[in-house]
Order: sequence, then structure tokens, then C-alpha cells
Amino acid sequence: MTTKLVLVRHGQSTWNEQNRFTGWKDVDLTDQGRAEAARAAELLKEAGFEFDVAYTSVLKRAIRTLWTILDGMDQMWVPVIRDWRLNERHYGALQGLNKAETAQKYGDEQVLIWRRSYDTPPPPMERSDERYAGNQRVYRGLTEQQVPQSESLKDTVDRFVPYFQAEIEPQIRAGKQVLIVAHGNSLRALIKHLDNISDEDIVKLNIPTGIPMVYELDDNLKPVSSGYLGDSDAAEKAAAAVANQGKS
Amino acid sequence: MTTKLVLVRHGQSTWNEQNRFTGWKDVDLTDQGRAEAARAAELLKEAGFEFDVAYTSVLKRAIRTLWTILDGMDQMWVPVIRDWRLNERHYGALQGLNKAETAQKYGDEQVLIWRRSYDTPPPPMERSDERYAGNQRVYRGLTEQQVPQSESLKDTVDRFVPYFQAEIEPQIRAGKQVLIVAHGNSLRALIKHLDNISDEDIVKLNIPTGIPMVYELDDNLKPVSSGYLGDSDAAEKAAAAVANQGKS
Repeated sequence: MTTKLVLVRHGQSTWNEQNRFTGWKDVDLTDQGRAEAARAAELLKEAGFEFDVAYTSVLKRAIRTLWTILDGMDQMWVPVIRDWRLNERHYGALQGLNKAETAQKYGDEQVLIWRRSYDTPPPPMERSDERYAGNQRVYRGLTEQQVPQSESLKDTVDRFVPYFQAEIEPQIRAGKQVLIVAHGNSLRALIKHLDNISDEDIVKLNIPTGIPMVYELDDNLKPVSSGYLGDSDAAEKAAAAVANQGKS
Repeated sequence: MTTKLVLVRHGQSTWNEQNRFTGWKDVDLTDQGRAEAARAAELLKEAGFEFDVAYTSVLKRAIRTLWTILDGMDQMWVPVIRDWRLNERHYGALQGLNKAETAQKYGDEQVLIWRRSYDTPPPPMERSDERYAGNQRVYRGLTEQQVPQSESLKDTVDRFVPYFQAEIEPQIRAGKQVLIVAHGNSLRALIKHLDNISDEDIVKLNIPTGIPMVYELDDNLKPVSSGYLGDSDAAEKAAAAVANQGKS
């Protein structure tokens, strides 16, 4: 017997549009992002999904994407669990900088290292910085060690995968239909784990915004198949657009 | 030391507008209902509320009201717990009937008994009825005994107050700022409990839609004060409009 697991990257955000490093900055969806979320709802509805529980981050671009999906599917009653461990990778001191400007300043190569190295975090955000997450109410239950000042993709893997194993896997094993709405890098972290992708290859994987990805998992939660819902050309184009964002 | 507890009845729904017995029927908000919810968000924001956790029913008119409030206050990250025990009173076989029509058919007096008697439930909904909640996915975790076929206000008290004591009181005692978005009769049930109101008096209490009610509770969770946010005349007028709905 197999179970399905659905992953959705939030729709386009205002900072995606402005090509800025977003990380934990709590920016909202653009109109296009809202339309992408509504389209995701249509695709999931057409495919007949009936969710039992949904997981998302504490960032509003993911939460609004999830709300739009549950609303569009007429499944607003589905329990929603928000957790910071599903947040986007923390981009440290780069948060808020325009990607193209950062590339001009530091060079394409350095930016590509920060964006695409598996284990090199960007320069840290100081605790005295007004953007520091530890000063925000949403993160006040976290220890100082838990609040990142910057993260590599490896750091994101190290916080999200244990959460997935402890909290989400038991739901899937219990036969629950699970929906996860998260971010480019937290989903990379999960896909690395599910598909056992190498450190080198995972950084090259680009996930399009707002297109539901469906994993079919066996009893050991190993993928039997996976793929995007809807038009596969559209998913590839959207993924390519994401890949090109860091170029100056 | 005192803690505040905020209660909001969902904004106007399509069946409020059509003056029909709604109960567990999952109708949505009207445009006016959405505007009421947005106004509730403004009032709560102006009053400086910062919520730690929010409770609501599994009915979309309450969930959408809550979403609108959290969105308007920029507190979308706040954990939300949905539970059927916060649902509206189940109106049995009357669900879907127009209140004025029902009054013409059965007489104002009988309808008033069904609407306003503390412990007389309306005629039951049969389990074979397609509207029976036990056949719906959202309620499939409930036992047959838990799924109501009809409820008096007393029945609603008997399901919601124990939930409040077991799940919500500990949060308030822990100093959490709690928001409850629910329904006319589930809020009546709670207010009866909080203010120790008699069976006779609670049925006369009318709660306006979309106007936040703030309780200040002492260490024993006894009310020190309570009142509506914003214009008190508006709250009274809205409550009076609710009271007049059942007349033919």
C-alpha cells in the first residue's frame, strides 16, 4: 500500500518579485502569488485530494498560500500546524539585499556559493540587528541556540528533517493525507531526505512556486514515484525562472 | 493579576441573511460578514491585542472570521486550534428552514421554545438524512454518540464547557492571550459558564456578530469586567437585530 504526500512551495512573494534575499523576513504574496495559490487549489481539487492535516511555516507567504488552497478546495476545517522549522532558510546578513546587486558587489561566484553551497552559511545577522528573529514575538518560545543568525542548506536540513521524522512521519504512517506548504529551501531539505539526494545535487534542484508536487510513498516512506500536478512544461519553466534569479 | 480573554461571534453568514436555521450547516460569510470581521481586526489592533493562540470551530464562517482577524492584525503566525466542540448549536431537523416560515408553520411560540428554551432540543435529524454530520469527513473521528442529531442550548453547554475547561483554561492560566472565534450559541454556553448566568437568563442574551467581547479574568478565571470593543451603541443595535430574527 502507498500513501501520497503533497508538497507546495508558496506562491510568488513581493521579495521574489524584487529579487531580494528573503529568508525569515515575513513578506506577503504578490497578486501573482495569490493566483498561483488559487491555481494550486484547483489542481489539487481536480486530482481529488482530501487532506487530513496540513503543515506550514510561521511565515505569512506560506500561510496565505495554504489558506488559499484550503479555501479553494472547500477544506478550511483541516487542522493546520504552523512551525518555525518549516521556515525558509535564514539568509543571515543578506536578508533584504537585492540578489542582482549582491552579485554585482560580491561577484556572481560568491553569491552562488552562498545560494548554492550545501554547507556555507551567508554572513551572520547580529543579535543587535533589528531584523534579528530572536527579538520577535513569534519566535519567543525558542532558545537562543535555536534562533538562527544565518543558515546553510545543511542547517535547514538539520532543523526540518528531524521535525518531519518526529511529527509528520507518524501522521503519514497512520494513513493521514498530509499537505505541506513551505519554502524553496525547506522543501529542498525534505526532498533531499525523501529522495536521498547528494549534497552536490540538492543545491541544483529548483522548485517552482505554487505547483503541487505529489510523492507516492511505500510503507517505509520511500518514494515510489513523484511529480508535479498539471502541465509539466509549466513546472519546468517555473523552475528555470527560479534558477535564474541569482544572476546579476 | 488579571488576564484578558477575547470572544468574537463570526460575521454575518449567508443563512443569517436569509434568516434560516443554520446550526452545523457549513455556510460562508456574506460580504457584510467579511466587513464585520475586518472591522473586528481593526478594533483589536487599535486595542493593542497580541494573541498567543486562537480557538475556533470547524465551520468556515468562524474560520474565515478568524483568518480575517489574524490577517488584519498581521498575526497570521498565531497557532489556530479548530474543534467541533466550538460549533454552533445543532438545530436538528430545522437546519435549512427559514425562521419566519418555520414560525408561520409551527407558530411563534413553538419556534421561540426551540430557539430559546434552555433544554428543549428541536426535532432530531435522522441518521439517514444526507445532512447528517456523521456522514461528513470533517466529523469522521467522532463517535456516533458525539455526533448530535439535534441540540438544546444545554447540550451545547455540555459539550463546549468541558472542552473549555480542559483545553483553553490551562492556556489562560499559563498567561497566554487567547482569542475564541465561535458562534451565537457556543459563545452563549461559554458566557453562561463565565458569568454564572441562570438557564432562564442565558436564552435572552443576544450576541452581535463580529464585535469583539473582552473579558478580564482574575487568577481563578472569574470575570472582573467584560464589554464590547468599540461603539457600545452599535453593539446593542446589532444584538437587537439578532433577537428579532425569529419573528414571523
